[in-house]
Amino acid sequence: MTDVFDHPWLGGLFADPDMAALWSPDAQLSGMRAFEAAFSRALGRAGLADHAEAAARTIEGMDVDMDDLRAGTGQDGVVVPRLVRQMKAQAGNVAGSVHKGATSQDVIDTATAIAMRDTLTLIDARLGALTDALQALDARFGTCPLMGRTRMQAATEITVADRVAPWLLPLSDHRARLAAARPRVARLQLGGASGDRADLGDRADAVGADMAAALGLENPPRAWHAMRDGVAEFAGLLSLVSGTLGKMGQDIALMAQQGIGEISLSGGGASSAMAHKQNPVLAELLVTLARFNAGQLALMHQALIHEQERSGAAWALEWMVLPQMAQATGRALTAAITLAGQVQRIGSPTA
Amino acid sequence: MTDVFDHPWLGGLFADPDMAALWSPDAQLSGMRAFEAAFSRALGRAGLADHAEAAARTIEGMDVDMDDLRAGTGQDGVVVPRLVRQMKAQAGNVAGSVHKGATSQDVIDTATAIAMRDTLTLIDARLGALTDALQALDARFGTCPLMGRTRMQAATEITVADRVAPWLLPLSDHRARLAAARPRVARLQLGGASGDRADLGDRADAVGADMAAALGLENPPRAWHAMRDGVAEFAGLLSLVSGTLGKMGQDIALMAQQGIGEISLSGGGASSAMAHKQNPVLAELLVTLARFNAGQLALMHQALIHEQERSGAAWALEWMVLPQMAQATGRALTAAITLAGQVQRIGSPTA
Amino acid sequence: MTDVFDHPWLGGLFADPDMAALWSPDAQLSGMRAFEAAFSRALGRAGLADHAEAAARTIEGMDVDMDDLRAGTGQDGVVVPRLVRQMKAQAGNVAGSVHKGATSQDVIDTATAIAMRDTLTLIDARLGALTDALQALDARFGTCPLMGRTRMQAATEITVADRVAPWLLPLSDHRARLAAARPRVARLQLGGASGDRADLGDRADAVGADMAAALGLENPPRAWHAMRDGVAEFAGLLSLVSGTLGKMGQDIALMAQQGIGEISLSGGGASSAMAHKQNPVLAELLVTLARFNAGQLALMHQALIHEQERSGAAWALEWMVLPQMAQATGRALTAAITLAGQVQRIGSPTA
Amino acid sequence: MTDVFDHPWLGGLFADPDMAALWSPDAQLSGMRAFEAAFSRALGRAGLADHAEAAARTIEGMDVDMDDLRAGTGQDGVVVPRLVRQMKAQAGNVAGSVHKGATSQDVIDTATAIAMRDTLTLIDARLGALTDALQALDARFGTCPLMGRTRMQAATEITVADRVAPWLLPLSDHRARLAAARPRVARLQLGGASGDRADLGDRADAVGADMAAALGLENPPRAWHAMRDGVAEFAGLLSLVSGTLGKMGQDIALMAQQGIGEISLSGGGASSAMAHKQNPVLAELLVTLARFNAGQLALMHQALIHEQERSGAAWALEWMVLPQMAQATGRALTAAITLAGQVQRIGSPTA
Repeated sequence: MTDVFDHPWLGGLFADPDMAALWSPDAQLSGMRAFEAAFSRALGRAGLADHAEAAARTIEGMDVDMDDLRAGTGQDGVVVPRLVRQMKAQAGNVAGSVHKGATSQDVIDTATAIAMRDTLTLIDARLGALTDALQALDARFGTCPLMGRTRMQAATEITVADRVAPWLLPLSDHRARLAAARPRVARLQLGGASGDRADLGDRADAVGADMAAALGLENPPRAWHAMRDGVAEFAGLLSLVSGTLGKMGQDIALMAQQGIGEISLSGGGASSAMAHKQNPVLAELLVTLARFNAGQLALMHQALIHEQERSGAAWALEWMVLPQMAQATGRALTAAITLAGQVQRIGSPTA
Repeated sequence: MTDVFDHPWLGGLFADPDMAALWSPDAQLSGMRAFEAAFSRALGRAGLADHAEAAARTIEGMDVDMDDLRAGTGQDGVVVPRLVRQMKAQAGNVAGSVHKGATSQDVIDTATAIAMRDTLTLIDARLGALTDALQALDARFGTCPLMGRTRMQAATEITVADRVAPWLLPLSDHRARLAAARPRVARLQLGGASGDRADLGDRADAVGADMAAALGLENPPRAWHAMRDGVAEFAGLLSLVSGTLGKMGQDIALMAQQGIGEISLSGGGASSAMAHKQNPVLAELLVTLARFNAGQLALMHQALIHEQERSGAAWALEWMVLPQMAQATGRALTAAITLAGQVQRIGSPTA
Repeated sequence: MTDVFDHPWLGGLFADPDMAALWSPDAQLSGMRAFEAAFSRALGRAGLADHAEAAARTIEGMDVDMDDLRAGTGQDGVVVPRLVRQMKAQAGNVAGSVHKGATSQDVIDTATAIAMRDTLTLIDARLGALTDALQALDARFGTCPLMGRTRMQAATEITVADRVAPWLLPLSDHRARLAAARPRVARLQLGGASGDRADLGDRADAVGADMAAALGLENPPRAWHAMRDGVAEFAGLLSLVSGTLGKMGQDIALMAQQGIGEISLSGGGASSAMAHKQNPVLAELLVTLARFNAGQLALMHQALIHEQERSGAAWALEWMVLPQMAQATGRALTAAITLAGQVQRIGSPTA
Repeated sequence: MTDVFDHPWLGGLFADPDMAALWSPDAQLSGMRAFEAAFSRALGRAGLADHAEAAARTIEGMDVDMDDLRAGTGQDGVVVPRLVRQMKAQAGNVAGSVHKGATSQDVIDTATAIAMRDTLTLIDARLGALTDALQALDARFGTCPLMGRTRMQAATEITVADRVAPWLLPLSDHRARLAAARPRVARLQLGGASGDRADLGDRADAVGADMAAALGLENPPRAWHAMRDGVAEFAGLLSLVSGTLGKMGQDIALMAQQGIGEISLSGGGASSAMAHKQNPVLAELLVTLARFNAGQLALMHQALIHEQERSGAAWALEWMVLPQMAQATGRALTAAITLAGQVQRIGSPTA
């Protein structure tokens, strides 16, 4: 029952393979190697390393000893010391051009920034697809009458368009928020030991600009080691998106009640005890994922209290929470898109 | 010990009178009356009400029976039905121009939007003042050496400017976030019974535009009754700000430890048992307020699951949480500004 | 809109005067003075103070300068230094028998322990009253048929007793939990400056036993300054209780939907826009209060990370949260009792 | 970076193999099959099924088609309908003795109850081991002087025993809490479709008693489908334990600071940038895990609002959260035990 996103059977409900791929160990390792290769090349171009291209190619082609990484993470609290040791061992006489002036947080945070950037792209595309799906729903059923319900009581008659609007209209605001946040989220991390880029001297800006261009990231004026507001903002966007979809899910689950009958869905879930049931599984799932993300967001904001130049405690809390939030949002979007397509009828049962 | 923000003695530590004023019952009542007065006038100009100006003036000058409001809120779950009843009673023969086509949520949410708008303004100004204070600190001590500390261990020597940067740099990003969110936050709420503005017919847009102009709010294309993403975004901004200040507070509390001695503060707190102590009270307070807001934010995101056209349950959860978050952020800002001014020396003790 | 528990009109919905009284500034001040008076007397009986009775009587009869307390709390982060200064000033030549060997945390935490103890008593009594009310409901309607609903879909026919059981049965478990937790919650705090009772020497145990007896509290073997598990456990109990009631509220709100019609309630709330509505205000309120407490509980557990001998930051977080949780639970209980009494009919509409 | 507990390299830091085994898909499947086998046998002994032993043996020896389970979970929202279909297919002509009168929630919740029961046992044993380790530390260093620190400031001199006490003393209270909660946690779930055991008629109690004995669980008077207080209480215990350990970790990380020097640890973590560093990795990890659990606990309490006879949304939220909390607590305990053994010296540096 551990990790619903990567579970032999619960994965059938919770998994979002595309999003999982962006946050997988493979992607993380790939991001870390991309950082190191770009760093070596940038050092070379800045005149801070010899044989930089050879070092970069070694990094890109290296064999990774996973058992060693695992043992090292247990020992050091981060994977990078051992990963760099492996890199240097394979780089042989060009080892001096590897990781020289960088630190663990540069490597891991840059890999995370790449994952966040690609997550923004994936979410944006799906918000577009969901917008289309809900507009199609609106086009089909928007004018149908529906009982408005306030405080869980029948209010006045509205239309289906009025019920759908709060599922649909926030999506464009979400896309605007994603776009505005992107430069604060998709940023190179480069600071070195204590975050001041001291080991890069007066070439620090040049190295940063070079790497950012190579990696497709923003180049902030200095390291954001201990400034986690971009990460927390990203998490907030994830939860805003899943929250809107949770509202849609709650509405649909309520509409699907016997006695209410405001929606007909195909593809409902079976019961092991009751053959007649058609459970609104995806609608419920949207509620679950929204509540999950709402709770996790609190932890991402607790992690804003990132003491001094690097907090092992606060940083590791992000590792525990952020990939799950991304997957929850990703899955909420695929579930919402599917659910919108399952609607066979929407509107008051007398309609 | 209830309500630290408005408490005979804890208020000395937690209160922010300026922010409290924006969210006080008086301000809330004023906002609700402003809504109703603007609504009556807009109805009049749209040809939907007679004697609208007279109705508006009655609303603006009315006597409020607080006991009746309290009894009504207990009965109805919202204050507006009784408030409107009082308004109509005092409006006499122009009562028909009061609240006709509006609903409770319009009134309360618009008042909240006004409070949120003014909160954004207040926070922005204070972020400016804190920026100045931290820049002054940086100017005085920025070049002083300081031991960089990562994972709570001495790392490499940095400068005071490096330690201060993560307190200072996010502030401008926060101001940009506030500005971007403003039109999504400072919005008129106008929907009527089920949120579709049905009772206003084809004059709905005109009424909305008129009111928005009068109240200094945005005029969204439709009611946001059940779209709470703007409110949740606002709450997220509050917590991002207090989170940055919590990091500053944690750093200062760590720097002030005996044996570390990286900072000297004036104005430390006394102990009832130890005359020699100088407790870094405001630094600790910043940590407290940041953790408080981080936790509350989860509830504002839980409240995104706002079912159907109006959720009494989710809406009331916002009432419990949002004014506290505003006050926590407001107080964090005043505390941070004061704390920055208490710094007498910053840097390694050998400096 | 600040502090819903003590608000001119929202108090009509949220206030629980009995619970508020237990956590009010008056009660807190009374608890602190009770600590100091009992402490002086215990010092006297232990031979550690002269004129102890005179000191105690001064404390009990003292005039309190609230403005000074407020200013002191802002300065010191806790109220006790100024309160003790006032006590000593009024004690005159017996001032040496006041607070000698105690510290701020002893005073405040003991006052809180008194409030927690009395809260346990109040909640237990209300759980008893709610048990009676739900048993009466069960006796009246328990055998009526009702459609069982799983995953928000009609399942198989059950009885009203089956729906009511999950509201009722946990109550006795809650009472057992309260009773078991009581000795871990209702405990004297007595540690002195760093919590080791050093200033009381070999009379520490005698002083503790004396005070505990006088105050009606347990006398733990040592100070619990930095062991907050009892406080967090108490908070957990509050949220377990409000959670059970939240489930009851959610069920009732769902049962009251038009189209479902499984319950008829008297006393429903009015709408400002729709005269026909009978909103299930108290049922919604139970959901709100449950979600509120669930979120706050996270902060009480964050505050378990109470560093060293006293954490100003973690401790103050408890001050912000705990009184609210007590009031939310108290109000949930009174609301649930009222709501149970509002049920006029329960069961399938065809019944 | 997904699932830190089961990750190629982060698992080196976060994994607790013993705890993971209790919550693994294998254990979950084993628990579900144990339920079904015990159910078939109990049906047989109660005269409600023929060939019950043959059915039970089929269940125990069945081949499981994981792909089908995954597809079914995606379709039905729970794994049980497909699992039962597989069971029945393999049971052939005794299929009528499989799952007859049970429902999905019975199967999954009973498997979870088994995992919770075994988790209580594992945690209790580790609390014992940690008690021993901390008592040994106390025996070695307890009398050494140490500067007491309150509000992050030097207070008065205490002893190491005073610092260690808040790490040690709560452990016995935790063990008492675990023992008291056990019968409310380790309970058979048996309710059938809507939780009323209707399909088992007057043999329901006999079937429940038989199964509970076979499975080593309590036999509650009725199904706890919609009464989640036992599960939430269990989660609260997990977070109380990890919270105490988080305080220990925070203290040790503070003690290990350069300039403070109150503790010497072996086995510190390396840095990729600074060869001289010895990071207190496990101490930080304890803080991380405590904050993680504190946040998750809020969600387990949100899930108390489990509407009607079964909430797909609230139930699935438990699936997402609870196994992680168990693993976080398990790992916190192994980390704390290891960390206690890494202490080479503790006490003021002048000691």
